[in-house]
Amino acid sequence: MALHIIIMAGGKGERLWPLSREERPKQLLDFGSGRTLLRRTVDRCLPLADHSRIYVITGAAIAPAVREELGDLPPRNIIAEPVGRNTAPCIAFAARLIAANDPDASLVVLPADHLIADEERFVAVMQYAVASLQSYPHLLLTLGIVPDHAETGYGYIQPGERLSGSQELQLLQVAAFCEKPDAERAQAYVDAGYFWNAGMFVWRADTVLRELAENLPEMAALLEQSFGESDADQAIDRFYAQVKGISIDYGIMEKSRNVAVIPVDFGWNDIGSWDAVDVMLQRDGQGNAFSGDVVVEDAAGNVICSSGKKIVVLGVEDLAVVEGPDAILVCPRSRAQDVSGIAKKIK
Amino acid sequence: MALHIIIMAGGKGERLWPLSREERPKQLLDFGSGRTLLRRTVDRCLPLADHSRIYVITGAAIAPAVREELGDLPPRNIIAEPVGRNTAPCIAFAARLIAANDPDASLVVLPADHLIADEERFVAVMQYAVASLQSYPHLLLTLGIVPDHAETGYGYIQPGERLSGSQELQLLQVAAFCEKPDAERAQAYVDAGYFWNAGMFVWRADTVLRELAENLPEMAALLEQSFGESDADQAIDRFYAQVKGISIDYGIMEKSRNVAVIPVDFGWNDIGSWDAVDVMLQRDGQGNAFSGDVVVEDAAGNVICSSGKKIVVLGVEDLAVVEGPDAILVCPRSRAQDVSGIAKKIK
Repeated sequence: MALHIIIMAGGKGERLWPLSREERPKQLLDFGSGRTLLRRTVDRCLPLADHSRIYVITGAAIAPAVREELGDLPPRNIIAEPVGRNTAPCIAFAARLIAANDPDASLVVLPADHLIADEERFVAVMQYAVASLQSYPHLLLTLGIVPDHAETGYGYIQPGERLSGSQELQLLQVAAFCEKPDAERAQAYVDAGYFWNAGMFVWRADTVLRELAENLPEMAALLEQSFGESDADQAIDRFYAQVKGISIDYGIMEKSRNVAVIPVDFGWNDIGSWDAVDVMLQRDGQGNAFSGDVVVEDAAGNVICSSGKKIVVLGVEDLAVVEGPDAILVCPRSRAQDVSGIAKKIK
Repeated sequence: MALHIIIMAGGKGERLWPLSREERPKQLLDFGSGRTLLRRTVDRCLPLADHSRIYVITGAAIAPAVREELGDLPPRNIIAEPVGRNTAPCIAFAARLIAANDPDASLVVLPADHLIADEERFVAVMQYAVASLQSYPHLLLTLGIVPDHAETGYGYIQPGERLSGSQELQLLQVAAFCEKPDAERAQAYVDAGYFWNAGMFVWRADTVLRELAENLPEMAALLEQSFGESDADQAIDRFYAQVKGISIDYGIMEKSRNVAVIPVDFGWNDIGSWDAVDVMLQRDGQGNAFSGDVVVEDAAGNVICSSGKKIVVLGVEDLAVVEGPDAILVCPRSRAQDVSGIAKKIK
């Protein structure tokens, strides 16, 4: 039961406009740290699986950049989607591809653009999850982040009965998946011990393909047809030419009864807005976080990213100031979640 | 008694960094309006003197750009200082140059980088000042701006007895020139009816040269020696090779007893910081002032200047956001006077 890693690197990253762009989305940014989020994600998985068993699914437009960034992976492990169709087709295609060579495969599915502070803990959690599949081969496991505030930007997972494990690492039934809540409801979720849904999954390849057949039978049939008639290169074109976009959460997780959650607390951060980028950056004693050529005077708590021009920030607090290749953003960090709307409008 | 205009265009404009630079100081900026401050200053004087009697003294580095900007002036009227030596040498040299051809000349001396809202009133004031020289040929006249707030960034003029005129336009003795005050003293000056010293002067060429001989005899001797031995082109090199830098205020105005002031109120603005630039810019209904490719959302009272990149300003108030050729500034408008210090430090 070999473990394979599927890294989903199809994100557009509009929330980090104007630094992230279609041709260089969030997962390919390093914020001056020297290591992109994608590179960090791959490196984080190397204790779990060697290079040959790490797969990256990405968009055709950035596939060359991804192959260059990940020169240590076999080129055929970088899979280019002809078009983006959300997470369910992406995960289904990768699972089918891997299952063709390793019918007994276990899969860890991860977004390419999240940051995890405690990487040793991450590895331990994943090892626990994969080991749990021995006892529960039919389960779809999802990781649930223990929240540290009442966030309205994530979906929540309501836990049910404990299946196994201890307080330290445990497997719980999922009572329900909950949509992104308003502020009041978010607080109620946090108070009731719900977890954030972070889109990280562990399951057997045959299990997720069986769940696909059950919950998204059209997609499953199209997948089999695409692989039945052609090699992998042709299969992907055939499959994506017809498949409908849907998320794995909506298409399978929320419908299946075979879902369980492992609560985790390893310093997860989805770098979902400029407000969250500070953890990737250099810091000064006044809470400013910055990359590139930046001069700060009498200013505190700002996130400042230069792409080439010297940025001078004087006498302001808690702003995001970002220079991209052809645009400059200035906004309060507290408004950073509104940036994607503006980025879309400008496009 | 022909009138000649001397426009002093030697300013470095560090207060408008990062848009103003050594190679393009404030007087050569148009803030997207299509007319530079220098061009506006020349145009403002055309009702007073034709092109042949308008002189611009500037630095050697930007003289070619000034000649291009002012193609309607005779090229020899653009005088390039080999080095900047403050205002007294600049004014003395120009006065001597003009007096050589027109010993009876009257002079209006103006900075190149101020803005005047009511240009008709400006012309009327200058005509009054020049006419006053008929009765008071020995006086050095300075314009005193009627203050609208207790500014600490300007010197003040304490008025004395009225010499002539009415409430509408009058000539007053100068009791004293006062250094830039602190806030408390500034308020006392305003309450006592003092004026701002704006560095605009009207006098006869022979008068200012006589005052030079009296108050700065070394400089006067050097000037005569430079002109005596050579033509104008050589004279400027000889003069500036040895002359010491000093302001006209410190070198002559504060020492002379023959000084008078004309109070004026024609919408004067020295565009002395980003906070003051808004009057030059496009405006929106929320008090934002901007030039170039700027997108404003849910933001008010900001001054925003793009030099090429799209600037998006979201959810902030009363900031200056300025993109220069190789730097970006973000600061509160109320801190804009601190910019020159940073600009110097960065150099």
